[in-house]
Amino acid sequence: MKNREVRLKRYPDGLPAKDIFEIVDADLPALAQGQMLIRNIWMTVDPYMRGRMTAGRDSYVPPFELGEVLDGGSVGQVVESNGGPFAAGDYVTGMLGGWRQYHVTNGLGLSKIDMALGAPLGAYLGVLGMPGMTAWYGLQKIGKPKPGETVFVSAAAGAVGALVCQIAKIRECRVVGTAGSAKKCDWLKNAIGVDAAINYREAGDGLSNALKEAAPKGVDIYFENVGGIHLEAALEAMNPLGRIVACGMISQYNNPDPVGVRNLFNVIGKRITMQGFIVSDSFAEIPAFTADMGGWVASGKIKWEETVYDGLDKAPEAFIGLFSGDNLGKALVRIGPDKA
Amino acid sequence: MKNREVRLKRYPDGLPAKDIFEIVDADLPALAQGQMLIRNIWMTVDPYMRGRMTAGRDSYVPPFELGEVLDGGSVGQVVESNGGPFAAGDYVTGMLGGWRQYHVTNGLGLSKIDMALGAPLGAYLGVLGMPGMTAWYGLQKIGKPKPGETVFVSAAAGAVGALVCQIAKIRECRVVGTAGSAKKCDWLKNAIGVDAAINYREAGDGLSNALKEAAPKGVDIYFENVGGIHLEAALEAMNPLGRIVACGMISQYNNPDPVGVRNLFNVIGKRITMQGFIVSDSFAEIPAFTADMGGWVASGKIKWEETVYDGLDKAPEAFIGLFSGDNLGKALVRIGPDKA
Repeated sequence: MKNREVRLKRYPDGLPAKDIFEIVDADLPALAQGQMLIRNIWMTVDPYMRGRMTAGRDSYVPPFELGEVLDGGSVGQVVESNGGPFAAGDYVTGMLGGWRQYHVTNGLGLSKIDMALGAPLGAYLGVLGMPGMTAWYGLQKIGKPKPGETVFVSAAAGAVGALVCQIAKIRECRVVGTAGSAKKCDWLKNAIGVDAAINYREAGDGLSNALKEAAPKGVDIYFENVGGIHLEAALEAMNPLGRIVACGMISQYNNPDPVGVRNLFNVIGKRITMQGFIVSDSFAEIPAFTADMGGWVASGKIKWEETVYDGLDKAPEAFIGLFSGDNLGKALVRIGPDKA
Repeated sequence: MKNREVRLKRYPDGLPAKDIFEIVDADLPALAQGQMLIRNIWMTVDPYMRGRMTAGRDSYVPPFELGEVLDGGSVGQVVESNGGPFAAGDYVTGMLGGWRQYHVTNGLGLSKIDMALGAPLGAYLGVLGMPGMTAWYGLQKIGKPKPGETVFVSAAAGAVGALVCQIAKIRECRVVGTAGSAKKCDWLKNAIGVDAAINYREAGDGLSNALKEAAPKGVDIYFENVGGIHLEAALEAMNPLGRIVACGMISQYNNPDPVGVRNLFNVIGKRITMQGFIVSDSFAEIPAFTADMGGWVASGKIKWEETVYDGLDKAPEAFIGLFSGDNLGKALVRIGPDKA
């Protein structure tokens, strides 16, 4: 039995291109005692993976190894269990099984999906998974929104951003988001319910002024997904005692000559707190997250979009698409059908 | 009776020069009911004043007004009281009476100095005053040092920095400081007791490597007084869950084209918290500060240096000297003798 998988051939220099990946039909090993064979249904591509494509980088997750299969979040179904923790037929999700058709695992970090909730399986890689947790934890535990405050979200039409916008509206805040097209801005205003949306490509160097117009009472919380001039604009517009939730800086990941942020002195004068976090900081809060987000999804309070790439072979393209700004909502790769 | 005072003629463009100031012998008004006449003995010059020399700037303190006497911290003695809160002969200190020979005030923001402590009067503008409070509050309440951690202090031979270094040593931390000359680095190592001192002028572009060598276990707390490449070096060297105490960014205050910080993505991967503060955030802590710092001063645990400019007419020079990096310790202007 063969297992199709995506390997990393070399580390990218700047923007990743398809030729850094290699798609291989590898041998599937026999199951050892305690192992399970998972048939993958969905896998996720996320911006943080770019950070793992740099050799020797001192980061919170080790770099991907060259010549090896990549890893990342996935949803799948147990085909066979040789004494593993889940039974054949169970649907499971975890952070390590992605970029391959089948996954052999002892179940470490894997959890069983409660199918009674009725959520589509892909949601466990988005609103009910890591991006949902990131949005929920970052906004609530670091941003600490109060009713009436203004929340500014960059990459607001992205997987995390669109959820932050909606949680901020549930928390009775005024929400301003940026996105890279008129279509996305329309979606933010009409479907997601933000109070103002800024097309940052159109605004260009005028982003700071556009933000000040869109946030006439100033910005209390900036949910940072982009970096560079987005951060500069936020620092200009922020109110005293503002909070910056530092979640990502996607504009800088592929930039060999990163843009410097020139107005950090605002952090002092305005007594701003900027705090970085990663989703694993929040694992103790999973029950509270599940209660909140599960409830909002069930009651229709939270909406989401997916940009789906069909077939494992499209995974490189899906990943590269994260940096072009063309995706709306969560980027997912469908590896196989829900039912075998 | 005439009152010599220093007025601001125009806002500086970049580095302040003497010709932005004007020294004038103004008329001294008669005391209204409730007012006192204070003879100034010392005044302070501090980097934050540069921020008040910009028109229309949205900052935590309003800009200085053109054509008016400047203000700032001072120590003086009450000459006459017309029903004011302190009596003739009392020594007082406050944040508003500086840049002038005499000060007419109702006592707002002024406190009486306890002469029984035996500290020199200038110390109330340094170790026992605003810079002391800034160092104590910033390091302890924002930095939260734990024994064995590494604290990196920029402008370590400055008024605030040298106190931060010593409090960090009292808290059993390893301390690395930067300063702009070999003489200051020697003073930091031999008098202040830091574990390593880096001459940043000598290090140049190699500051980041020099810091990594001086802090082999990484930096847990960065006390930020400088900005620019100092902040970049700190971000490279910091450990996960590091704290940046954002107190000042003196390298940027006179720079019409500020240096951008290019590696802020470390804030995310390393889950760093960067928090800006100003000394007035800490006023509720004055009793705790006085207990700690008064005790350390009395027992000789805290040392300090002063760079004294003699005479009110030297105040512009003293202020400009803040940005040349030539001062050691606290810069003060002596306006008159301790006793009239």
